[in-house]
Amino acid sequence: MIDLTAGLASFLAGARIPAAVREKAKRPLIDTAGVMLSGAGSEVAPPLIRYLDAHHAMGPGIVLGTARTAPAEIAALVNGTFGHALDFDDGIVSAPVHPSSVVVAALLAGAPRLAGPALLDAYVLGVEVAVKLAVAIGIEHYHRGWHGTGTLGIFGAVAALARARRLDPLVTQTAFGLAASMASGVQRNFGTMGKPLHTGWAARNAVVAVELAAAGFSAAQDALEADSGFFAVYGNDRSDPGRVLNELGNPYAIDDPGMSLKRYACCYASHRPIEGLLALRRVLNFSEHDIESVRCVLAPGSLRALIYPRPRNGLEGKFSLEYALAAGVIDPRYSLWTFGDEAVNRPAAQALLPRITVLEDARCAVGDAHAAARGPSRRGFVEVHAVTRDGQHAMSRVDKLPGSPDQPLEWSELRAKFLDCAGAAGLDAGRAGSAFDQLAALEHCENVTSIVQLLRR
Amino acid sequence: MIDLTAGLASFLAGARIPAAVREKAKRPLIDTAGVMLSGAGSEVAPPLIRYLDAHHAMGPGIVLGTARTAPAEIAALVNGTFGHALDFDDGIVSAPVHPSSVVVAALLAGAPRLAGPALLDAYVLGVEVAVKLAVAIGIEHYHRGWHGTGTLGIFGAVAALARARRLDPLVTQTAFGLAASMASGVQRNFGTMGKPLHTGWAARNAVVAVELAAAGFSAAQDALEADSGFFAVYGNDRSDPGRVLNELGNPYAIDDPGMSLKRYACCYASHRPIEGLLALRRVLNFSEHDIESVRCVLAPGSLRALIYPRPRNGLEGKFSLEYALAAGVIDPRYSLWTFGDEAVNRPAAQALLPRITVLEDARCAVGDAHAAARGPSRRGFVEVHAVTRDGQHAMSRVDKLPGSPDQPLEWSELRAKFLDCAGAAGLDAGRAGSAFDQLAALEHCENVTSIVQLLRR
Repeated sequence: MIDLTAGLASFLAGARIPAAVREKAKRPLIDTAGVMLSGAGSEVAPPLIRYLDAHHAMGPGIVLGTARTAPAEIAALVNGTFGHALDFDDGIVSAPVHPSSVVVAALLAGAPRLAGPALLDAYVLGVEVAVKLAVAIGIEHYHRGWHGTGTLGIFGAVAALARARRLDPLVTQTAFGLAASMASGVQRNFGTMGKPLHTGWAARNAVVAVELAAAGFSAAQDALEADSGFFAVYGNDRSDPGRVLNELGNPYAIDDPGMSLKRYACCYASHRPIEGLLALRRVLNFSEHDIESVRCVLAPGSLRALIYPRPRNGLEGKFSLEYALAAGVIDPRYSLWTFGDEAVNRPAAQALLPRITVLEDARCAVGDAHAAARGPSRRGFVEVHAVTRDGQHAMSRVDKLPGSPDQPLEWSELRAKFLDCAGAAGLDAGRAGSAFDQLAALEHCENVTSIVQLLRR
Repeated sequence: MIDLTAGLASFLAGARIPAAVREKAKRPLIDTAGVMLSGAGSEVAPPLIRYLDAHHAMGPGIVLGTARTAPAEIAALVNGTFGHALDFDDGIVSAPVHPSSVVVAALLAGAPRLAGPALLDAYVLGVEVAVKLAVAIGIEHYHRGWHGTGTLGIFGAVAALARARRLDPLVTQTAFGLAASMASGVQRNFGTMGKPLHTGWAARNAVVAVELAAAGFSAAQDALEADSGFFAVYGNDRSDPGRVLNELGNPYAIDDPGMSLKRYACCYASHRPIEGLLALRRVLNFSEHDIESVRCVLAPGSLRALIYPRPRNGLEGKFSLEYALAAGVIDPRYSLWTFGDEAVNRPAAQALLPRITVLEDARCAVGDAHAAARGPSRRGFVEVHAVTRDGQHAMSRVDKLPGSPDQPLEWSELRAKFLDCAGAAGLDAGRAGSAFDQLAALEHCENVTSIVQLLRR
């Protein structure tokens, strides 16, 4: 039996994060904060605010993008749910988890007065633990129906809080033990608000696990690896908890493979096609009035989630490749608004849909030996073909996924996304811009509370 | 596919609880409230109070046995944990769950102003749903390492709240859907405070699931029975969700088999031996100075949890049959104090331990065809033999488990237990007695808040 829980606790207390890794962590951390603001402008916000009201709970936790405060753990719940509300938060190719929103929501609520470097270190470690545990428990955990963002995210958030609060390693072990009795989230709730709730739930529960452990509550000290513990109950024959300790920080997941940040507020599988379309616009300089047809060809399996050829609302538009391309024909400036109800129902967009064809072709997997193993957004390459009414035609091939480590977002793109998200929550653009600039220099910040205050209404 | 979630929601809205069942529910409901008070005087209380303090959360929820209030969901967490802190709460022979503490903690916090009959009905239905789901998911769920009190208790608590708040059945379905993403609790935490936390956790989570659903949050409407839902993820090949709807109220679990209430604050497997010893006291009229030896014979497997022949503290004393018998030789009045550190370390008790022998013998399973399938507290029968220094000897055989439906607690015993528990929390005996008397007439109570107020310090 490996001493996984004790080993994790010890690692968290002693880890020294290289400056380059800390620097690399800044973009996904900032992106996560921005995406949380977008959630404050999304459909999950009104019921969450009603919940806060019905609950009559007061406390010091800041609810981003609103004027509310709440008990810390409940602020973590709401902010975490905001972070995954639009499926606009980051991911990582190593495992089907979105750890950043869980970890950041827990840190903002459970360790609110950190200096910038300490926040970055805790964030790096939180993502590290969630990702390495996800890899070790294996894909069968996901196939059974668990939502890893919830079931593994909670341990990442506990890890981040343990580091941020400099917990004694024995207390950290207790917090992991309590978290083993709190991990939850089933995929049946995908397609409902229950899915982003998993993110907030994991963040909230991590805050409680750490608070209880710090208050002297007891729990098993080996709850990850022992009989009737987390891996035994949530894992399967192919799970391999023994690999975790060797892989911690070796390299850090945030460094390699690195986080993938979403440039567009729609299904990741549409992102390369959008890039191709924008490239064609630059070549052919067309507008919606000039276009005869657009055709997009993708590797087999790429269209699995893109199931709405004729979307009628924003949510369907997020999963419509035809619409994602039509939107770019009309206007190259993609934003959150682009994937809302109003934009999807623009007559110009609806009129363009029949001119756009999408299809899978095995040819687009040629040269990618791992195509079948990759997610739909990254397998093989994508071709976008456009024909204008005056007979010009052109093709653009896209291999790299925008926002992924292969092609990171530029700071200017990250800023634009952040301000777009802040605008969705109704935040003042000047304050949001100031917050972004301070976050971009986070390593010099002495207390992040001052920045977080800028992200309120 | 059966419409389990929808069927449950519909049943909860329409069920009419027979008056006899409601009457039968009073004792376990009152016992549960009393046992929660005992938790307020137990080792879990100081860390939970520190958690409340560190949390800076205020709200209207009453924390029993203390002077505190907290947000409703957090009061549910604390009261539920209190309820299972001493393993003194009730059980049922149908399944390895302790539903009452979960259901009652959720009801007190999430529907605080009920009239007595409505509280009783909601309690009956909450226990009903937890027990019938536990039976349907099957014992393999428990063998995998789940603690059913947590993973199934949450649905019982949601059911109780749905009834108490008269939720629209569609809202109830949503709350069940959210609960499917919140169910948790692994057995690795048995033997730590993490075990009673499962009870409070399920209660808290049920309150949140109902609050969110009532606030307009969405979730899957078929999360119990559908792919990637509760039974699919937490169950196994032998689970049978299809039986639940037929079994609801047919009969009610509280009516048949009925709840088993603990007369003594120690491991259930010691309860029949204690009864036997007390019977011998009445025959032989001995005191600690008169006894030469005591010998207890039990059916094979009965001693599995009774592993401390020479206990050194209260917790070990709870799992020491030798001590449980020694205590009764000294004083026939068993109380919470009897299983505390001070009592276990009494010189008289320690001196008696070597005079007490316990052993398993297959003879004690004769006549019980189901002995092997029963829990250790109920298999076969128990014999207690005593020999006094002046050469008298006698034997007492005990078949029925005290506090079980075969031999229910008398109202006077229930009252004595309630007052003992209230005393452990430092409550005024007069107020506690008044609360008990009002609870005993609960069917006439118009608003249980006035009774609950008596259970504060």
